[in-house]
Amino acid sequence: MKALVYHGPRDMRYEDVETPKPKKGEVLVKVKSVSICGSDLSGYKGGSAMRVAPLIMGHEFSGEIARLGEGVSGMKVGDRVGVVTNLYCGTCQDCKDGLQNVCDNRFIIGTTMKAGGYNGAMADYVVAPAVKIMPLPDSVSFDECALVEPLSISLRATKHAGELKGKNVAVFGAGPIGLMGVMCLKSFGAKRIIAIDIVENRLKMALQCGATDAINSNEDVLAITRKMTDGVGLDVVFDAAGVPATVNTGIEIARNGGTLLMVGMASPKIEIEYKHAVCKELRLQASYMYTAEMREGLQMIVDGKLNVRQMITSRYPISEGARIFEELASGKTSDIKVILAND
Amino acid sequence: MKALVYHGPRDMRYEDVETPKPKKGEVLVKVKSVSICGSDLSGYKGGSAMRVAPLIMGHEFSGEIARLGEGVSGMKVGDRVGVVTNLYCGTCQDCKDGLQNVCDNRFIIGTTMKAGGYNGAMADYVVAPAVKIMPLPDSVSFDECALVEPLSISLRATKHAGELKGKNVAVFGAGPIGLMGVMCLKSFGAKRIIAIDIVENRLKMALQCGATDAINSNEDVLAITRKMTDGVGLDVVFDAAGVPATVNTGIEIARNGGTLLMVGMASPKIEIEYKHAVCKELRLQASYMYTAEMREGLQMIVDGKLNVRQMITSRYPISEGARIFEELASGKTSDIKVILAND
Repeated sequence: MKALVYHGPRDMRYEDVETPKPKKGEVLVKVKSVSICGSDLSGYKGGSAMRVAPLIMGHEFSGEIARLGEGVSGMKVGDRVGVVTNLYCGTCQDCKDGLQNVCDNRFIIGTTMKAGGYNGAMADYVVAPAVKIMPLPDSVSFDECALVEPLSISLRATKHAGELKGKNVAVFGAGPIGLMGVMCLKSFGAKRIIAIDIVENRLKMALQCGATDAINSNEDVLAITRKMTDGVGLDVVFDAAGVPATVNTGIEIARNGGTLLMVGMASPKIEIEYKHAVCKELRLQASYMYTAEMREGLQMIVDGKLNVRQMITSRYPISEGARIFEELASGKTSDIKVILAND
Repeated sequence: MKALVYHGPRDMRYEDVETPKPKKGEVLVKVKSVSICGSDLSGYKGGSAMRVAPLIMGHEFSGEIARLGEGVSGMKVGDRVGVVTNLYCGTCQDCKDGLQNVCDNRFIIGTTMKAGGYNGAMADYVVAPAVKIMPLPDSVSFDECALVEPLSISLRATKHAGELKGKNVAVFGAGPIGLMGVMCLKSFGAKRIIAIDIVENRLKMALQCGATDAINSNEDVLAITRKMTDGVGLDVVFDAAGVPATVNTGIEIARNGGTLLMVGMASPKIEIEYKHAVCKELRLQASYMYTAEMREGLQMIVDGKLNVRQMITSRYPISEGARIFEELASGKTSDIKVILAND
């Protein structure tokens, strides 16, 4: 089969590789649509321990069942499917306690973890355990289904916020995770959703996704958000960036007793205004990956609660992937979400 | 009356001042027992914006009603009492939302806040609003009652931990807040309570207060706590210190999905292992002051659920306060909690 293989920093090649064979309990999925994640780009640039060459990336995807491994039932060749990409061990204490998202022994399709590498969906075919298959209704396109994985990240973070009805919320970073955060927050009843980013076309997209307000981070974010909230501050700050500026501005614009959702983590270490956070009695709540949220997110799309389609700004054949990765890495595009397709 | 007046860094004087008069709705309390808080010591050393000279400190105290202001009913001269020292405004959004602990307009007896200074209990008498009075049963001593305020800090933090039954918990810092944290955690059903401090006599006191284990912070805290928790890590870390070492070790020893209670805040800014905290999906929950926890804490003492008495290591007349403050500030004593008394 053909696959986009990561051979090292800025070295991606569309080449022939052996078609994988589904083992017992696994299925072979013919890839139809795979989305490029920011973490794939970091990996491509050589900045991620989670992308060790040689590796076929791609953990946001959809396709059709192409072949069933031994003992697999309940699905058939040709079925339209999405795939839950977190292959947790199921036996550690974290898994037993429902924290499969932080299982230390997990594989993730399309990445390199402590447990090892697992080839992903930037290829004609990908193998996945049958238990990870999600049936995909005809009403949801392959492209939309490819966005369920990032949606699950935003959905889990939003669930961590607690009750949102009538609340004032800010979202730092109007990239895919922040934008889907806007959609989830809106779906959960947040009253005012203020998107904050430095890129104007992303702010425009945030408004299209349901944000009530948009602030360019070059402006006086504290003064503007205080005015918007009658001097009180934000009940919840959803930080999809995770850099010193967003975290500390987040601590500042959150109301007393408020919540900062730590979703992005672009900076490994951050000096935070610690005493200030304590004196405001803030809750700094991290959210990482997903457990049941991929299936829940797909259902939200099926139910028409979210429109993830609007975030897809470009679509190319997987065969052009090497060029597309390089373009995205150069930062010259204003793309939000790019789909690689096997039509 | 006589009072211990803070005149500036390391300048405390026991001197004559005018006896305050209770206004409408206020009472005059004859002070019987007042405890020295770490924040009083910081103030004495000149390191606190919350202690602006001239000021009579003392926000952890008990006494007897000496005089009733106009319109006060339901209590009489001679009644034994404790006093809730947080004088919140009651009208701001924080107060309306039950967050009187972070009311930006509050006074605190014995401190200087944005709203202004309010003389405290290191004196013969102190004035307090009648609504802040807590009746003190004969079964609880004045000294014990003086410890209800710091107890309320530890109690609120412990309540922020959520369900504690059967949980493994570590407490950083075996000073008064950490020790009362140990007591509260025990009272709330925590299974294993591991006290961590660098001072051996404090660790000894922690075991006396109910800790199941004690670790000197010079040891390999990560390895030891991992072993104690079958490799999983701590469900909850109660950080009564709030310095870079405790916060980052806390992030390290907490289990995946665990909670770090941010109680101490000795360092204004702390560089934290941010990405690590996100990938473990931690909850960094600040706890600040108290709302109803002073009354709840007093009731716990009345009900015999806690023994705060054991933490009192020294007791002196208020008249000796200037010398005592200097001794404590020099760091030469191994005291845990010091009471100044008007016997």
